[in-house]
Amino acid sequence: MTWPSRSRLHAKARSILLRARLAARRVLAPRVLSGPLSKSANTLAGCEHRSWKMADVPNGEQGCGSPLELFKNIAAQGELVRALKARNAAKDEIDSAVKMLLSLKMSYKAATGEDYKADYPPGDPAPGSDSGLDATEAGEDFVDPWTVQTSSAKGIDYDKLIVRFGSSKIDEELINRIERATGQRPHHFLRRGIFFSHRDMHQILDAYENKKPFYLYTGRGPSSEAMHVGHLIPFIFTKWLQDVFNVPLVIQMTDDEKYLWKDLTLDQAYGYAVENAKDIIACGFDIKKTFIFSDLDYMGMSPGFYKNVVKIQKHVTFNQVKGIFGFTDSDCIGKISFPAIQAAPSFSNSFPQIFRDRTDVQCLIPCAIDQDPYFRMTRDVAPRIGYPKPALLHSTFFPALQGAQTKMSASDPNSSIFLTDTAKQIKTKVNKHAFSGGRDTIEEHRQFGGNCDVDVSFMYLTFFLEDDDRLEQIRKDYTSGAMLTGELKKELIEVLQPLIAEHQARRKEVTDEIVKEFMTPRKLSYDFE
Amino acid sequence: MTWPSRSRLHAKARSILLRARLAARRVLAPRVLSGPLSKSANTLAGCEHRSWKMADVPNGEQGCGSPLELFKNIAAQGELVRALKARNAAKDEIDSAVKMLLSLKMSYKAATGEDYKADYPPGDPAPGSDSGLDATEAGEDFVDPWTVQTSSAKGIDYDKLIVRFGSSKIDEELINRIERATGQRPHHFLRRGIFFSHRDMHQILDAYENKKPFYLYTGRGPSSEAMHVGHLIPFIFTKWLQDVFNVPLVIQMTDDEKYLWKDLTLDQAYGYAVENAKDIIACGFDIKKTFIFSDLDYMGMSPGFYKNVVKIQKHVTFNQVKGIFGFTDSDCIGKISFPAIQAAPSFSNSFPQIFRDRTDVQCLIPCAIDQDPYFRMTRDVAPRIGYPKPALLHSTFFPALQGAQTKMSASDPNSSIFLTDTAKQIKTKVNKHAFSGGRDTIEEHRQFGGNCDVDVSFMYLTFFLEDDDRLEQIRKDYTSGAMLTGELKKELIEVLQPLIAEHQARRKEVTDEIVKEFMTPRKLSYDFE
Repeated sequence: MTWPSRSRLHAKARSILLRARLAARRVLAPRVLSGPLSKSANTLAGCEHRSWKMADVPNGEQGCGSPLELFKNIAAQGELVRALKARNAAKDEIDSAVKMLLSLKMSYKAATGEDYKADYPPGDPAPGSDSGLDATEAGEDFVDPWTVQTSSAKGIDYDKLIVRFGSSKIDEELINRIERATGQRPHHFLRRGIFFSHRDMHQILDAYENKKPFYLYTGRGPSSEAMHVGHLIPFIFTKWLQDVFNVPLVIQMTDDEKYLWKDLTLDQAYGYAVENAKDIIACGFDIKKTFIFSDLDYMGMSPGFYKNVVKIQKHVTFNQVKGIFGFTDSDCIGKISFPAIQAAPSFSNSFPQIFRDRTDVQCLIPCAIDQDPYFRMTRDVAPRIGYPKPALLHSTFFPALQGAQTKMSASDPNSSIFLTDTAKQIKTKVNKHAFSGGRDTIEEHRQFGGNCDVDVSFMYLTFFLEDDDRLEQIRKDYTSGAMLTGELKKELIEVLQPLIAEHQARRKEVTDEIVKEFMTPRKLSYDFE
Repeated sequence: MTWPSRSRLHAKARSILLRARLAARRVLAPRVLSGPLSKSANTLAGCEHRSWKMADVPNGEQGCGSPLELFKNIAAQGELVRALKARNAAKDEIDSAVKMLLSLKMSYKAATGEDYKADYPPGDPAPGSDSGLDATEAGEDFVDPWTVQTSSAKGIDYDKLIVRFGSSKIDEELINRIERATGQRPHHFLRRGIFFSHRDMHQILDAYENKKPFYLYTGRGPSSEAMHVGHLIPFIFTKWLQDVFNVPLVIQMTDDEKYLWKDLTLDQAYGYAVENAKDIIACGFDIKKTFIFSDLDYMGMSPGFYKNVVKIQKHVTFNQVKGIFGFTDSDCIGKISFPAIQAAPSFSNSFPQIFRDRTDVQCLIPCAIDQDPYFRMTRDVAPRIGYPKPALLHSTFFPALQGAQTKMSASDPNSSIFLTDTAKQIKTKVNKHAFSGGRDTIEEHRQFGGNCDVDVSFMYLTFFLEDDDRLEQIRKDYTSGAMLTGELKKELIEVLQPLIAEHQARRKEVTDEIVKEFMTPRKLSYDFE
C-alpha cells in the first residue's frame, strides 16, 4: 500500500492515511491555539530531539528562474575570481572576471530590486513549482538546527519548507517506487508523511535497481544520557531502510559538537556518546552492517576522515556558514568549522575500513528536516571536491507532550516520554501532561467531538501505532465525541508502555563489549575494492 | 662567552659581537636604501622562509599599566558574561555582569580616549618598559605570518617588536644562564642576537635545573620541495637545543595548512611534507629523540591530537583569530580553525606515545618571530584548558639575496641559496645576486670602505660563519675598504659551498625507511608515567 499525493486523493478510500498524514504534518502546526500556549511567534517543538545541528537559508536547488539563475551565476563567477586570485593569475584575467562579476550583480539588482547577497538566493519559489503557496509568506518560518520558529498560528508549513529548502516532496510515485524496488510495504513513517521530503532519492533507487552500492548515514548529538522516544524516529526508520535495502550504515555521534556547544568536558561528551549508542543499538541494528563512531574517537583512528574534513573546510567560507547556520564573529572557531565534520561522513572514503579507497559510493541520509542545512552545504561542496552528492530523506519534527508549539527539553522530564521511563511514569505523563484536543466538559465533548489536529496523544499514535485501521477508528471516534480524552490517552499508554519496556529489555542486552564492537573501525559484511 | 645586553656594552672588548648582532638585526632594516629598492612601505624579506603561519596584534603580556589592566579586566568580564549566558544563568546574574562590563568599558574610554576593541590592547608600552622607544612609532611595523612590512626606511625594529609583542629580550643574563645550566658555549645564533627574543625561557631553565622534563616543538609549512638555507635556521638551532638539553623534540609539518592556503592537492602537500622532512632530518636530529609528523597523517593516528584541537577551538572566537591573524569573512573555515592545529602540539598530551597522559610537560618552541601570534593565542588559551603555557625563543628573519627589504620566493631560484644548489650555482648566485654594500668603484671602495649593515653577503656570514674572530676581521676589512666586494663574496661562497655539499651528502643518506621511522608515532628515549 502506498501513499497518494494530495492532489490525487479520493476522499473516501484513502481518508485514514490522509488524515494521519495531515495530523503528522500539523504536529507543529495546530490550527487552534488557545490559552497560554498561543503566541504570535511560537518557538516550536523538536529542538531537543534533533541529532546533529543547523540554520536555514532559502537555498538554491529549487529550479532556475531568472533571478535564481543570475544568483547562481554570480556565485560561480565569485568562485572563479577567488580561484584566479588564489593562483595568482594574470591581472588582466582577474580584472575581466571581476568586471563580469560586477555586471552580473548589476543585472541581479535590476531583476530583483535587491543587492546580491551570498547565500541568500532570491526569495521567490522557482516558476513551475506546483506548491501554489504564497511566496512572500514562505519566508516567515524559521527552521535551523537550533531553532524552529514561525510567526504563523498555523505553525511550520512543511510544504512551504520543501519549497524554501529546495527539496522534493515524497510523493505517491516515489513511495510506489520504493515498494516496487524493495518488494516491501513502505514503512508507516513514509505512508503517513512523517518522512515527507527528499533529495535525489530517485538516484538512490536507480543505483539500487542497477545493483550499484550505496550506504546510509545518520547521527546523533549526545548532549545528555537522556533520550526520549522522539530521538528514536530517525533510527527506527534507518533500521527499516537498512533491512529493506541491505546496505552499510554509519552513525555519527557528534560528541565534539556537544563539547563545543554545551558546558561539557570532553569525557562527559564522549560518555554520553557511548550511552546513547546503547539506545541506538537497541533499535536492532545489524552489527555486521553498522559502524557507530564518536567524532572525538574516530578522528584519531581514521586515515580518511580528517582528510575529507580539511577538503570540505577548504571549500566553505565563513560567509557561507554565517549565511547557512547564523554563526557570528563571537562564535568559537570550533563551531565555525564544525559543519565540515558533520559533512565528511557523507563521503565514502571517510571510512576506508568499509569502502577501501572508493570515493564513488553514494550516501543516503535519513534525518529530521532541521539537519538539512548541513547537507545542503555538503551537496554544494561535493562536486567541487570530486564526490557524489549525498541523497536525503527528511522527517517532520516530533512534538513535545505539552503541545506541538512548545519546546521539548531534556532537562524537563515531563516534556516527553523518556526511554528510561517506567510504565507508571508513562501513564502519569500522558494523563497529566499530554496536550489534549478534547472539550472542557464531557457533555461538550460528546456533543462537538475532540480535535485530533492539536491532540498530542493522537499525534504520538500516528508515530507509534502501526495499525492503520485502528488509528483511523480512533480518529473517527475522537472527532465524533464517541471517544473521550481519557480513552484516547489510554490507547497511547497501551502503545507506549510495551514499546518502551521492549526497548529497555533490548538495551539491557547491549553490553560494553557489543558497544565497543559497533564502535570499532572495521570491515562490514560488504566487499568493496 | 656570552652576549652582553646593549646597555652594558664596552665599546672595544665586545665590538665584534655587537656589530655582528646589529648586522643581524638590520638584516631587514638597511639604513641606506637606494635605487629601485627604496619604497616608503617596504615588503620585507623572510615571508617565504617561515615554517608555519601568522598576523600581529600588539598583545597584552607586557605589563599592567592602568589602560592595559582595564583592557584585561574587560576581556575577563566579557568571558564571564559569555560563560553565564552559555550556562543559562539567572537573568539577574547576567544583567549585573553586563552592567559591570559596560562600566569597565566606560572607564576604558575615559582612560584611553578610545572605544574598547577586543584583541586590540592599548597601544602604549607598559610603564617601566626600558625600551625607551616612541610608542606611537611602534605601531607602524607590521609582522604576521604572511606579511612583514614597515613604513620606516630603517625597516623592522626588533626591539620595538619585543615591546609590541610583549615578549622579552634575550639578554646577557639569560645567555649566561643558558651557558651555566648546560655547561655549553651558547650557539652563535644566541651570541649574535639571531635568536633575540623569548617568552618564559627562565621557566624552562628552572625546570631543567630542577630535573623536571620539558620538550621542544618546532615546525615547517611544506609549500614546495624547494628549501633554502634560511629554512634551516630554526632547525639548526633546535638541533643545538636538543643536543645541549637532551629533551624530546616534535616537528610539525603543516601540510594541511599548505593545502588550505595554496593551490595544492592533499597528496602534493603530504608529498612536500615528506620531502622537506628529509632536509630536516639531514640537520642531524637524533631519531631516538625526535618525532616528525604530517598533520594530515597524524590527525588520523593519534588519540590525543584532535581532542586538544577541539579544546583549543572551543576557547578561541572568530573575533580573536580575526584580530590576531587578519582573517576575513571570505576566508574558508579551514583557515579560520587552523590556528588550533598549530597550537595543539604545544601541549604534551597531544603525543600520548611520547608523554603518556602527562599534560604538564612544558613545551619550548624555537621559531621565527612571525610565528609568535600563533603562540600568543596558544598561551592565552593554555591556562583556560588546564595546560602550561609554551615558552618561546624567537629568531629574526633571514634576508633574501637581493637585499633585506625584498621578498624571498621559492619560485625565484635567485632569491636565495637553495639546498639543492651546486657549488657552481652558489658561486654564481652570490656573485651575481647578493646585494652589495660596496662602493661603485674600486677606488671609492678603497677610500671610503663598504657598508656591512646592508651587505647581504656579510649578513649571511653572520648566520653561517661560526668563527667570531674571522667574522670580525672581515667586518673590519670590508668597512675599511681593505677587503673588496669580490673578496667578501668569496668568503661567503667558501662557507656556503661545503655547508650545502655536506647537507646534500647527509640528505642522500636519509632513506624512505628513515623518514618513515621518524614519522611513526612511538615512544622516544624518555620515560614518562
